[in-house]
Amino acid sequence: MILISTVGIFINIKKDEAIKMAEKLIDYLKKNEIDYLVESRSADCLNEKEKKANFKELREKVDFVALFGGDGTLLRAARHFAGSDIPLLGINIGSLGFMTVIEVEAVEKAIDLILKNEFEIENRMMITAEVYRDNCEVYNGFGLNDVVINRGANFNLIGVELFINNQFVSSFKGDGLIVSTPTGSTAYSLSAGGPIIHPGLEVLVITPISPHNLYIRPLVIGGNDEVLADLEVAGSNMKISIDGRCGFDLRNGDQVKIKKAPHDVTLVKFPERNFYRILREKMRIGMI
Amino acid sequence: MILISTVGIFINIKKDEAIKMAEKLIDYLKKNEIDYLVESRSADCLNEKEKKANFKELREKVDFVALFGGDGTLLRAARHFAGSDIPLLGINIGSLGFMTVIEVEAVEKAIDLILKNEFEIENRMMITAEVYRDNCEVYNGFGLNDVVINRGANFNLIGVELFINNQFVSSFKGDGLIVSTPTGSTAYSLSAGGPIIHPGLEVLVITPISPHNLYIRPLVIGGNDEVLADLEVAGSNMKISIDGRCGFDLRNGDQVKIKKAPHDVTLVKFPERNFYRILREKMRIGMI
Amino acid sequence: MILISTVGIFINIKKDEAIKMAEKLIDYLKKNEIDYLVESRSADCLNEKEKKANFKELREKVDFVALFGGDGTLLRAARHFAGSDIPLLGINIGSLGFMTVIEVEAVEKAIDLILKNEFEIENRMMITAEVYRDNCEVYNGFGLNDVVINRGANFNLIGVELFINNQFVSSFKGDGLIVSTPTGSTAYSLSAGGPIIHPGLEVLVITPISPHNLYIRPLVIGGNDEVLADLEVAGSNMKISIDGRCGFDLRNGDQVKIKKAPHDVTLVKFPERNFYRILREKMRIGMI
Amino acid sequence: MILISTVGIFINIKKDEAIKMAEKLIDYLKKNEIDYLVESRSADCLNEKEKKANFKELREKVDFVALFGGDGTLLRAARHFAGSDIPLLGINIGSLGFMTVIEVEAVEKAIDLILKNEFEIENRMMITAEVYRDNCEVYNGFGLNDVVINRGANFNLIGVELFINNQFVSSFKGDGLIVSTPTGSTAYSLSAGGPIIHPGLEVLVITPISPHNLYIRPLVIGGNDEVLADLEVAGSNMKISIDGRCGFDLRNGDQVKIKKAPHDVTLVKFPERNFYRILREKMRIGMI
Repeated sequence: MILISTVGIFINIKKDEAIKMAEKLIDYLKKNEIDYLVESRSADCLNEKEKKANFKELREKVDFVALFGGDGTLLRAARHFAGSDIPLLGINIGSLGFMTVIEVEAVEKAIDLILKNEFEIENRMMITAEVYRDNCEVYNGFGLNDVVINRGANFNLIGVELFINNQFVSSFKGDGLIVSTPTGSTAYSLSAGGPIIHPGLEVLVITPISPHNLYIRPLVIGGNDEVLADLEVAGSNMKISIDGRCGFDLRNGDQVKIKKAPHDVTLVKFPERNFYRILREKMRIGMI
Repeated sequence: MILISTVGIFINIKKDEAIKMAEKLIDYLKKNEIDYLVESRSADCLNEKEKKANFKELREKVDFVALFGGDGTLLRAARHFAGSDIPLLGINIGSLGFMTVIEVEAVEKAIDLILKNEFEIENRMMITAEVYRDNCEVYNGFGLNDVVINRGANFNLIGVELFINNQFVSSFKGDGLIVSTPTGSTAYSLSAGGPIIHPGLEVLVITPISPHNLYIRPLVIGGNDEVLADLEVAGSNMKISIDGRCGFDLRNGDQVKIKKAPHDVTLVKFPERNFYRILREKMRIGMI
Repeated sequence: MILISTVGIFINIKKDEAIKMAEKLIDYLKKNEIDYLVESRSADCLNEKEKKANFKELREKVDFVALFGGDGTLLRAARHFAGSDIPLLGINIGSLGFMTVIEVEAVEKAIDLILKNEFEIENRMMITAEVYRDNCEVYNGFGLNDVVINRGANFNLIGVELFINNQFVSSFKGDGLIVSTPTGSTAYSLSAGGPIIHPGLEVLVITPISPHNLYIRPLVIGGNDEVLADLEVAGSNMKISIDGRCGFDLRNGDQVKIKKAPHDVTLVKFPERNFYRILREKMRIGMI
Repeated sequence: MILISTVGIFINIKKDEAIKMAEKLIDYLKKNEIDYLVESRSADCLNEKEKKANFKELREKVDFVALFGGDGTLLRAARHFAGSDIPLLGINIGSLGFMTVIEVEAVEKAIDLILKNEFEIENRMMITAEVYRDNCEVYNGFGLNDVVINRGANFNLIGVELFINNQFVSSFKGDGLIVSTPTGSTAYSLSAGGPIIHPGLEVLVITPISPHNLYIRPLVIGGNDEVLADLEVAGSNMKISIDGRCGFDLRNGDQVKIKKAPHDVTLVKFPERNFYRILREKMRIGMI
């Protein structure tokens, strides 16, 4: 059982609605005499200088984190709280989120349930990538959704030699390659033709982006399998990105190793907001 | 360690090459004084009346089974040896097989390795389906590849209400539905747009067949999840089939429960014939 | 300019709303002293015995036809009025139609515009199929949407050798084949992965159904090109159907010739109900 | 009838085989006393200073052009000879080409046939794009294959509002958009899920690249229809490219008009190298 003594707060500062909702939560916490800390930039926005804390401090001191934003906000938080066991509660501001499970109307009720310990958690696997150049690691990073290699503004195709657990799988040419966690399977991978994967599974999906080889298909492998992509490309501008951010420039001959990250992220889960219901609502509007 | 004292033999009797290869194996076994039993119909073909045994006897008496045929032959054998722990060795006659791992040239060498116990085995999950009509079970069956519900010669679409673990997922109309094991993911499911799944995983994939709802996508779920399809169809001719055989007529209002079968099948595995190599060879000829 | 002296009426007799709307139209026509004739079965439903006419009489005597139903009703009418130049006005009852361009609310206004000759027409190409067995024609038919060859309740794949204008294109195995007009491109062909084609074009699209050959793709050819499919199938139950009706049993070795029909069908077109708007509305609900 | 008095020669100077073949052709022309001119850079490579001519001179003086290279070489030549009626003969060096119709072995025979006027020609439609920024044209270009708008190295999605002949079609988000001629339908558009279109048709195909809206599908429109894409994108790096070259940087708010180019390109066509045969050979190796 997790005893909640300090609540962490992190918001998407670009969304007025997020600011407004976070202020309401702070009022509620004050009224109920529950301590809280606010992430630095969020604190500036909320005029909560005394409660300001950076991610490192939050990780040490809070018992759960309330996030106000969308899936993007949760992707950011996931990197900071990976491996901490601190449950993240995503409060959905704006468009429907896969990971942000609570709509704003239900925030206070949700906080009550969390304070009473009447909630479940779920662990989501994360993904990590390392780039090797001339046998030296030149980049590494990790994320919750996906690792994407794409040709960027380069109009030359990328050639990929794909290995799994050091076994050669296939070579193909195309715009690039997505390796996704189950959580990320409903993001870019789905747009590129990959399957939907229940977020509780421990698997990875490799989805080619616009492959010129017509027989190439998305491939689902085990959560402990290791993907190696040997990259060949004429010209420049090929990039690797994780969760849609921090592109690192790749070069001809680079090797990218992708596998399950050593740490999970922990999410608060409410039974009435199950994955299939969110999926159905997303699909009803035809937009992932 | 499995001590081999009796070899079972089962062949696709329509293939002359299978008969010829089985005869060579029998010569080899005789020469090496290894006992064997031959499946009834195969025995008739091979003139091995004294060694004739039905599947029940084979299950009780043999230590491993040599199959001469293609993936279809192995699908048949899988049903008879499911849950027995008896390893099946598929010897590939004709076109390249995913499950039949040994080419005819390598048979004697393979048998030697098996007799010396220098081989690995792998368990493959199987799948089971039950059909309920007015709350009574009217059909059940199991297989290694997939359960397919399709509209047959009926030109009316099938309406499916899909539930997983009793949670409503989605309703859609189309030609039907495939629920496949990882082993079956490279069969019909792939043709209908499903992903390739490594055969060692414990998952199921649900692949719609020509859905009219454009946002429906293949869905990968856990190996212990239970699929329920509530079927609605005007007109008749809708059928359920398992591993492409034994169609059972479905009716409007039928409920189909599909889940992992209680028993696995055991296959002999040789390291040099790994899944990705077979996949690559299959794709090279563009044909699954 | 078309002078309207007699209106034809044809309804989907299974839809109460269609009956009700047709009655309102008849009142309106009587009030405005415009003559009309009613298709036989529709006349029985509407108690219009004196105005009863079969399709042949309608073709001879009416100047335009008001259809009450959905796309299915228009598909039926299209076959009866093909080549007649009689414009068909589809009045949409129930779910949104691609071809039924007028919603019930707008019927009287539409009829007024038609009577005043303030409307446009558009011709839609139709498609025809002939089946040859041992060089004799054993079946022919035509339609507005598509010709579909599928394996029916047969669990054996169909093998197709495809020729266009007597040039060999490709052979493949799968569930079957759709050859569609532009009008039919948003029906079954779209579900099977075919492109959307503007209905004003003079082309055909060949869409394979769940092909086992992974490199096979939908193919768009000229409106005057002739498709020949040589069929090979083990077992029985393969069928050909046109516009989703009247399945004819095909056999191993049958040859199917598919091409543009000699006659078009003529539809009433209102500028505010253009194809892209209907498409967008259909897609908004994710259902074709 | 075209009387050939002067042959133009253009080669891919990076391919030794192209140089060797062109030298053989020149020997042959000399022996047969047929005049020729060589494109400037090709002439440098071939040591043909006296026969050196730029594209403008070639356009004025040659009766047909022999190209040694692949589809890329023909794409380049197409821009220079568009609208000239000068037939281009593509001689295939290296991998199989869709547009380069003659294999090297058959060059002399082909030249003979051309000189004897025993060949057919085919016109291929070309495509043009104009970019408007604040109502001013800031870029235009044309090509034979396709116009591609993509997000480049930008990890923000592109938002597209799509209009055809000023009618709103749909808005969607994704990696970008391909508008392709029939000739280009077997290039990038096919990789992104578009249909194959017979190169003789006068249509355009609009293929979205990894759209997030799951109901978006490739759309085939008339050859005289005009596509307008209103672009919205956060961040930078979005580009437009034609035939895979000369990327121009696009900005948020840019409007791109795409339509059939005013001029065609003329290709030499030999009956035994028809489109379906090339397609089949390409597909046999699974690579477009």
